[in-house]
Amino acid sequence: MDRHEKAMELALRRGFLWPSYEIYGGVSGFYDYGPLGATLKKKIEDLWRRFYCVQEGFLEISSPTVGPEEVFIASGHVSNFVDPMVECQKCHEAFRADHLVKGSLEVKTDGLSYKELERLIKDNAIKCQECGGPLGEVWSYNLMFKTHIGPGSRKVGYLRPETAQGMFILFNRLYAFYRKRLPFGAAQIGKAYRNEISPRQGLIRLREFTQAEVEIFVHPLQKTHKDFARYAGDELLLMTRGGEERRVTAREAVGTIVAHELLCYHLVLTRRFLEEAGVPADRIRFRQHLKTEMAHYAADCWDAEVFTERFGWVEVVGIADRTDFDLHAHQMVSKAELAAFVHYETPRLVKKRVLEPNMASLGPQFKGKAGKIVAALKELGEEGVATFARGGQVTLELEGERVVLGKDHLGLREAEERVVGEKVVPHVVEPSYGIDRILYCVLEAAYLEREGRVIMTFKNSVAPMEVAVFPLVPKEELTGYALRIVDTLKGEGLMVTYDEGDSIGRRYARVDEAGVPYAITVDFDSPKDDKVTVRERDTARQVRVDTKDLSQFLKKEFP
Amino acid sequence: MDRHEKAMELALRRGFLWPSYEIYGGVSGFYDYGPLGATLKKKIEDLWRRFYCVQEGFLEISSPTVGPEEVFIASGHVSNFVDPMVECQKCHEAFRADHLVKGSLEVKTDGLSYKELERLIKDNAIKCQECGGPLGEVWSYNLMFKTHIGPGSRKVGYLRPETAQGMFILFNRLYAFYRKRLPFGAAQIGKAYRNEISPRQGLIRLREFTQAEVEIFVHPLQKTHKDFARYAGDELLLMTRGGEERRVTAREAVGTIVAHELLCYHLVLTRRFLEEAGVPADRIRFRQHLKTEMAHYAADCWDAEVFTERFGWVEVVGIADRTDFDLHAHQMVSKAELAAFVHYETPRLVKKRVLEPNMASLGPQFKGKAGKIVAALKELGEEGVATFARGGQVTLELEGERVVLGKDHLGLREAEERVVGEKVVPHVVEPSYGIDRILYCVLEAAYLEREGRVIMTFKNSVAPMEVAVFPLVPKEELTGYALRIVDTLKGEGLMVTYDEGDSIGRRYARVDEAGVPYAITVDFDSPKDDKVTVRERDTARQVRVDTKDLSQFLKKEFP
Repeated sequence: MDRHEKAMELALRRGFLWPSYEIYGGVSGFYDYGPLGATLKKKIEDLWRRFYCVQEGFLEISSPTVGPEEVFIASGHVSNFVDPMVECQKCHEAFRADHLVKGSLEVKTDGLSYKELERLIKDNAIKCQECGGPLGEVWSYNLMFKTHIGPGSRKVGYLRPETAQGMFILFNRLYAFYRKRLPFGAAQIGKAYRNEISPRQGLIRLREFTQAEVEIFVHPLQKTHKDFARYAGDELLLMTRGGEERRVTAREAVGTIVAHELLCYHLVLTRRFLEEAGVPADRIRFRQHLKTEMAHYAADCWDAEVFTERFGWVEVVGIADRTDFDLHAHQMVSKAELAAFVHYETPRLVKKRVLEPNMASLGPQFKGKAGKIVAALKELGEEGVATFARGGQVTLELEGERVVLGKDHLGLREAEERVVGEKVVPHVVEPSYGIDRILYCVLEAAYLEREGRVIMTFKNSVAPMEVAVFPLVPKEELTGYALRIVDTLKGEGLMVTYDEGDSIGRRYARVDEAGVPYAITVDFDSPKDDKVTVRERDTARQVRVDTKDLSQFLKKEFP
Repeated sequence: MDRHEKAMELALRRGFLWPSYEIYGGVSGFYDYGPLGATLKKKIEDLWRRFYCVQEGFLEISSPTVGPEEVFIASGHVSNFVDPMVECQKCHEAFRADHLVKGSLEVKTDGLSYKELERLIKDNAIKCQECGGPLGEVWSYNLMFKTHIGPGSRKVGYLRPETAQGMFILFNRLYAFYRKRLPFGAAQIGKAYRNEISPRQGLIRLREFTQAEVEIFVHPLQKTHKDFARYAGDELLLMTRGGEERRVTAREAVGTIVAHELLCYHLVLTRRFLEEAGVPADRIRFRQHLKTEMAHYAADCWDAEVFTERFGWVEVVGIADRTDFDLHAHQMVSKAELAAFVHYETPRLVKKRVLEPNMASLGPQFKGKAGKIVAALKELGEEGVATFARGGQVTLELEGERVVLGKDHLGLREAEERVVGEKVVPHVVEPSYGIDRILYCVLEAAYLEREGRVIMTFKNSVAPMEVAVFPLVPKEELTGYALRIVDTLKGEGLMVTYDEGDSIGRRYARVDEAGVPYAITVDFDSPKDDKVTVRERDTARQVRVDTKDLSQFLKKEFP
């Protein structure tokens, strides 16, 4: 068994991960998180919140997972969120055409067209991998789960393919919430869906997964971060678009390799997060997307990749500059204005031509209506100026009547206008985390064998169970004392497990496998001297601690 | 404006709740949680985790929201999760027939059949509420969102109508995780879906909502709780099935009004949770379900209801004894065994008849095979005994050969067997929380007007923003000092907001509306004496605190 198989065997046996719908024969692309897995996941999410919501101040929002079709027409997912699919004409099993070709011929398939994939299948007589039957045409398969909202089939809905769209369509609400100032950001942790053709890589390729995304709305010309200096000396391992691997500081990378400071700041923050979650530093790199592989919305994109034993380098976070693609797209389809008003530092005087009404002529001719005409002329704005400059007259619609005004009534005049700012469609920078993949990497990295026994060496920040409490033997005088400790620690909000069965050695082994950082043993001296033994998981070191100091000692370790 | 409208106006304006897909004209039955709402929701969920996962020890699991059809055939949702629907024959608008009748005729519709609803519509000439057109037949509309898993339409899937099924189908995995001992429980917080016909009550009736459910698997004869004594003196306001309202202690209720101790324990725990979240005690009651309104799986069910100004008594938590309905149902459909093996306290001796081989006859006839025949006879067990008792012979299949054994070879003998335990399909007790409804109740309860200003009086345990930091004026000497405090408090994991604009009075008013419990003001003395002013939201009381003690002071308030 390789490390992957061993870690997955442990994950299955100890309640981290279970394939979904097992009693119904299983459905690929879905996983259940068991008690330890779900708690581990929750802790990874809370660590993420500490980084992005508490520290960076991007407050969390939560939008629905089901959305109406219009949203995904605008976002481009209805047309572009597709994979090339090919079906067996005999058994009707479906395959992802590029994966099939890549696996059968061991060639690169990035950027190949559907026609090219089809030709490769035909020329190389690639057959159905299930029954050996002939394969059909390569066609475009949309990866969104489709449904209907409300009764009947009039209102098509989809399960969201990313949480991001939820933030884009809330732009105006968020902009007001942040008191109409750029930059601001919103975060979201939630489910996203990808109805894969035939997923076969466990946690790495799920049909239902958890994303943690931040959308940072910035002025297109101000892609900086106020705290960049704090991390400027941090080192990053970068794989450039040219295929070069370079280890440079964030400061060196900005502008030379990474497009701008804001993107680079988020590369560093991501690296710090991954390390804090338990991914070893030497297994983290950032890879710049090739132009051909970038998502349909991205202008520049870096993947944080983690090296795994089974899957090689795995993308776990995408950090993209999505420019104004999404806001523009939703503006177009919804007709709502999605823009920020950016004040100039000092107001600018702008020269422009305006229509100048000739009151000497308008007054006598239109009498009481003259005032309304002047107001209506102002309304025409630049368009009115252009029309008059072109044809020497403008036409107004006034209380149902057409009024034609010519050179007798009007003139053009140069004027200076005081302009205090302008409308700008913000650009969006997005760190997008795949929580399930990160959890897999954390699990694999934590797996350690020592003297034939398994220790899950989770960092305290993500360890699902925090403390184990054992009476040395299951006798009333010890169990009572131990259970009082359990109650106290639970009262502090700590995740505590209690176990009185088996030898103390086997109980230690059991909690080592579950990755519990501290085990507390109550022995026959404990009720007398009010001290207990605290054993550290990774070192197996034991120290004697006053029972009354226990809470404080542990709260320090699990803030 | 009533209290509901005022609270909703504030929720909209201050970023608690936004109707979903606004820029696309909105889709009813969906709500977005804005930054304050999502954080409030997260805090309610974490409070729930403290009650159920930390304190009660029901560890959290997380199962998919998309499931294959078989699961929901077994659970009964494909046949029973339906509402009576009626459609306008002119404009094709759909209505929930019972709501329409109830609203039009002001009669009770609980328990009416589809035919009876149809007759009431016809007899009273109830018309389409949109266009006045005629209404058609009343038919059964399934409330699950339907989709397909993978390409094509071969594999039907549904969005889960409750998180509970995820725990039931994991029964064997969970049972092993808890080392094969009853009782145990699993908790889950996650999305559930109900594709309502035409939802019109905001957060109270959502198509996509968040549930927090616990499934407690117990021995059918042991519906007790080890800590019941702790809460036995707690008072509950109970509405019995007979329509009687009674205020009794938990101890008095068990066995007389509430079916058993375990159910009653969870009534108390729910009341304590709701109060801790900020629902006033006098607005909480428990209502026993009528036989006719119980879900298709429940044997006894109580709703925790909260009194709201707009919607009256609203169900926010259901506490049901689901018996073995679900495990039985999944056993039937999946063919997997879902049972616990319960050891007797002492082994029991059970009298039974067994097949007794006659070796004097078998030995000579079958020689070397005789041993195998004896083993094969044991395998037959009770079925073999019955066959032999009936027909005087049994037939074995031995290495491809048929062996017929008669009265020469066998006899029946009375024997005593030592039986150590038995298989039991556990019963399930389930507290099921509707998080969105609770959030609405918390929001409405927190709303307070004082001297024309709004204060959201959230309890510290759920307040989304915990601390506000203000420099008295936006001058460098104060802002620098204030921002250092912000950094320190964020480092402690506190949710901090910083504001330097406007007068201090307006800033106080702003954070009162957001329900921030503490506001810290840095004034011109602060840099000199290292003290700041802490203002308490609800009392407006101000105290001077040493800056260095701030973290500890606040951490005590937000554990």
